[in-house]
Amino acid sequence: MLQPRVVTFLGPRGTFTEAALEQVPGLELTERVPVANVAEALTAVSEGRSDAAMIAIENSIEGGVTAAQDALAATPGIRIISEHVVSVNFSLVAPAGTRLDDIRVIAAHPVAWAQCSGWLQRELPGRAHLPAASNVTAAADLGSGTAQAALSTPTIGQWVDGLDVLADRIGDNADAVTRFLFVGRAGAPGEPTGADKTSLVVELPSDEPGVLLDMLEQFATRGVNLSLIQSRPIGDRLGRYRFVMDADGHIRDERVADALLGLKRFSPSVTFLGSYPRADGQRIHVERRYSDRSFEDARDWVRGLIAGEPTS
Amino acid sequence: MLQPRVVTFLGPRGTFTEAALEQVPGLELTERVPVANVAEALTAVSEGRSDAAMIAIENSIEGGVTAAQDALAATPGIRIISEHVVSVNFSLVAPAGTRLDDIRVIAAHPVAWAQCSGWLQRELPGRAHLPAASNVTAAADLGSGTAQAALSTPTIGQWVDGLDVLADRIGDNADAVTRFLFVGRAGAPGEPTGADKTSLVVELPSDEPGVLLDMLEQFATRGVNLSLIQSRPIGDRLGRYRFVMDADGHIRDERVADALLGLKRFSPSVTFLGSYPRADGQRIHVERRYSDRSFEDARDWVRGLIAGEPTS
Amino acid sequence: MLQPRVVTFLGPRGTFTEAALEQVPGLELTERVPVANVAEALTAVSEGRSDAAMIAIENSIEGGVTAAQDALAATPGIRIISEHVVSVNFSLVAPAGTRLDDIRVIAAHPVAWAQCSGWLQRELPGRAHLPAASNVTAAADLGSGTAQAALSTPTIGQWVDGLDVLADRIGDNADAVTRFLFVGRAGAPGEPTGADKTSLVVELPSDEPGVLLDMLEQFATRGVNLSLIQSRPIGDRLGRYRFVMDADGHIRDERVADALLGLKRFSPSVTFLGSYPRADGQRIHVERRYSDRSFEDARDWVRGLIAGEPTS
Amino acid sequence: MLQPRVVTFLGPRGTFTEAALEQVPGLELTERVPVANVAEALTAVSEGRSDAAMIAIENSIEGGVTAAQDALAATPGIRIISEHVVSVNFSLVAPAGTRLDDIRVIAAHPVAWAQCSGWLQRELPGRAHLPAASNVTAAADLGSGTAQAALSTPTIGQWVDGLDVLADRIGDNADAVTRFLFVGRAGAPGEPTGADKTSLVVELPSDEPGVLLDMLEQFATRGVNLSLIQSRPIGDRLGRYRFVMDADGHIRDERVADALLGLKRFSPSVTFLGSYPRADGQRIHVERRYSDRSFEDARDWVRGLIAGEPTS
Repeated sequence: MLQPRVVTFLGPRGTFTEAALEQVPGLELTERVPVANVAEALTAVSEGRSDAAMIAIENSIEGGVTAAQDALAATPGIRIISEHVVSVNFSLVAPAGTRLDDIRVIAAHPVAWAQCSGWLQRELPGRAHLPAASNVTAAADLGSGTAQAALSTPTIGQWVDGLDVLADRIGDNADAVTRFLFVGRAGAPGEPTGADKTSLVVELPSDEPGVLLDMLEQFATRGVNLSLIQSRPIGDRLGRYRFVMDADGHIRDERVADALLGLKRFSPSVTFLGSYPRADGQRIHVERRYSDRSFEDARDWVRGLIAGEPTS
Repeated sequence: MLQPRVVTFLGPRGTFTEAALEQVPGLELTERVPVANVAEALTAVSEGRSDAAMIAIENSIEGGVTAAQDALAATPGIRIISEHVVSVNFSLVAPAGTRLDDIRVIAAHPVAWAQCSGWLQRELPGRAHLPAASNVTAAADLGSGTAQAALSTPTIGQWVDGLDVLADRIGDNADAVTRFLFVGRAGAPGEPTGADKTSLVVELPSDEPGVLLDMLEQFATRGVNLSLIQSRPIGDRLGRYRFVMDADGHIRDERVADALLGLKRFSPSVTFLGSYPRADGQRIHVERRYSDRSFEDARDWVRGLIAGEPTS
Repeated sequence: MLQPRVVTFLGPRGTFTEAALEQVPGLELTERVPVANVAEALTAVSEGRSDAAMIAIENSIEGGVTAAQDALAATPGIRIISEHVVSVNFSLVAPAGTRLDDIRVIAAHPVAWAQCSGWLQRELPGRAHLPAASNVTAAADLGSGTAQAALSTPTIGQWVDGLDVLADRIGDNADAVTRFLFVGRAGAPGEPTGADKTSLVVELPSDEPGVLLDMLEQFATRGVNLSLIQSRPIGDRLGRYRFVMDADGHIRDERVADALLGLKRFSPSVTFLGSYPRADGQRIHVERRYSDRSFEDARDWVRGLIAGEPTS
Repeated sequence: MLQPRVVTFLGPRGTFTEAALEQVPGLELTERVPVANVAEALTAVSEGRSDAAMIAIENSIEGGVTAAQDALAATPGIRIISEHVVSVNFSLVAPAGTRLDDIRVIAAHPVAWAQCSGWLQRELPGRAHLPAASNVTAAADLGSGTAQAALSTPTIGQWVDGLDVLADRIGDNADAVTRFLFVGRAGAPGEPTGADKTSLVVELPSDEPGVLLDMLEQFATRGVNLSLIQSRPIGDRLGRYRFVMDADGHIRDERVADALLGLKRFSPSVTFLGSYPRADGQRIHVERRYSDRSFEDARDWVRGLIAGEPTS
């Protein structure tokens, strides 16, 4: 992708989603436009008002999995460019000089309040909660409000001056991460890296038992592993599902392209969301029979048979 | 289940989760205890402090799918008793006598604010947002705060007096529903109704391509349809998944019991979350070869062969 | 195939195999060389001493299924050109003027004797059997031997003069047919007719349960039906099998070519025996998702995705 | 089985089929009745005129595979008791004192003549062939006929006195064996030995691609390996097949019984031909998940769930 001029993200500034944007190289000169929800972020890309969007897709505290998946499936003309994993944790911050004993009211996004409830009950029992619209505004409004401290993100110091961190990593789950997707307009996918992922949305042709199996055989017979599968009601009538899937590999890997061919023939609707490098960089192990070489050899063999070349 | 004495639910009182509790018969004398999150609601059941819990499981605005699914998978000794679907929409409420023109500041849970953004932009553009901790507190605090109106639930009038409804059904998606599960302690499942669902969490024995297929064949070879399948990382190491699944039918249906037998032999871990009536009451169509009768006939046949009875 | 100069067949002249040769057009000027067994007939083609061979492949009274299948699998450089079905029945013949009452001894190939045992017991009980080396020599030697009549083929009159047919269609199974294959040297297969068959020999990569299933999925996921499948021990060590298969369709049908690609990647050894018109002329019904058009559309779609063309 | 009084076999006496009978213990006092073909041998059992029959089932020189398989499928009320493998080779025999140089005419069953053609061409080129009705009569008639020698079985000395063996093991394939089945009336199968085989004939419910796969999944999902599979046209109308199969294991092994249950529900017709010890005595390796124990554990688990016992 060329240098994007504008990217959209779930705002406000300073949230974990913007932290994910920090992982994308080459955005120094890019305008970052916060929007209200995932669908809006993607629509801006689809309609050309933005060049790319960062959206939370998994384990997010800022938006559910399914809303983002449904928005990806519903928005035409977009393509996933990369995925990013951000450690999701919380800090207790306060104006410089504040001590724990001074705190009576804590400003916090309601979800942050819930995620830190264990620590709060142990360390600051009985404090009042002042709801805030985001992890950033909770801290930004400290000077003008009734709260003495705020729950905020570890990077809040970049956005709000004059804060002390009184405690950090206070979320109840220390290992919590959110997975984000950086999504651009449809175009040729990047080069395969050997550690890629391909995201798809596939409808089943009918809802009989066994049809899901037929769909998954399209992957299994090509040695393509799935790292995510999720059924989502299509919504037009009961019992119809689409499946959101992440497959190991890149559309330019022969086995993945062949699985896509099989899916396309099988399904009334296949949406290709993109082939892009895995955030964890883990290379895919491919058995020899599913290697590009094996596909090319087989094609040569069938071509030879049709041409009548002498073969065994 | 006997009359429960105590049920837990994601608080506060008056939310959509409590609306779901209204659908459960026989709770007139039951104490309803609001708790901070889904895991806490289930743990209270598991540890005996509560007899049952109501949790949002799908499309919820009050909690993501995956957190609830993971909590169900992780909490021992619980069983789903019933499912409930609640229409999720929002009303704009204000102290009696308030007119739309009077409104400058609107109190709202941040998620409600986002879900009504379309209506707000059209009808009340430029109004300020006062974040609230829940759809109930947004309305309850109207008298004492700076907001003139609140986004709240359609049933808020049961909980807060003196309110006028200025607009209702103002959520951007008029058909939005949340699916809830009523969860009790492990025990014998209820009688089959012909319109049942069985919920399971299953681990795969390995992460090779094709193993997921082997698992799903356990259902397909018994004619059992899946209405939900969702992969969830197990979290102990990369690439290991468990699958959360809803299968059509009841554990006391022969085909479902047989699929469970197959799963149990196949998987290092199968968690049975319960067999319970579907919220939509839709009866399952079962082909004759998967009927209870067909299973019984086959068993008689094999018994006869082993006993050496004259058979064709 | 050009006009063959020499064809081999399981002799002697006048047998059902030669009757099958009558069904092949364009053999008027061709030398027909009888040989002792199927392997010899095929080897003559493979080594260039013959241009084609006619061999019985199924339900034959002149050779078992498996010997012919094993010879097809073992002989390199050959290709099936066409299949032919011959009604297999028997006549009782005798020198002109012979009456049934005159018959004391009947010359017959042992297999023919067995196949007519029902009729013989009813109509000519107690007659002696003089074994003959073929259905033809049984009749040809009548003049010089001790037998008064012979069991022979319906067409024996073409080969031996001066015979009366005393009874015909006396085989115990009136509908018996033998299926024959006309086999030439490897070369480009003929044009698809819409009513074709493709014959293959495939080895499994291992003998674990489920590997046969993986092989058959290569056909099923492309909508290719099998009209014959037969396991044959490979013979190098216990438990290893090859599979002789007839698939509906022609290698130049996209779905068959694609199944061959899948087989080639899967199996340590795939032998293509040929694509040729079915003897029964029955056209293959192909679902739209397995049509050539569906394969071409899917390829265009994937090519477009890789090229970054705007697609849905 | 009790001591049988009468057994039928494909005659005449002294053939390889009778050699197979020698492998069955406890037939010392049993009357052995030769019959003309496989169907007759089995019908005699089915109708109670015989207690058991020995028939050649594979690689036989005395009858094709398919005729015997079709007869097994068609004859009601029978059950395979055991299988037997006989080395099939030929000896050149002659009245005591005969030298190779004396031989001008050789009596031989036509199939034996074909099977020894390589040796005959090398060692006795140009000798005449006197067709015989069996390998036994070829030798037995040497005294009274025009032949100086005969092709016969290695055991012919038990049946015909005064013969010298001039050459043995002269068949073109030194390793040739025939597999025989000893078939009795339907009754309780013998005890499992850990090295057993189960033979079945199964019809497919329809001829769509994928239905064969569904059938084989009944075996694969229970870890049951197939050592033989063969499609046979049913014959009532085109395109309908039955499948003759040998599965590893015994009907009293849980995994085999469970596969039979699955087949019975799936297929319009399943014929159980018997569970019996393998001729090669090779023990079946069973993965733990397919062991009897695994089946029993899974049943206990499902029973506990239904009863509401506390389980994980």
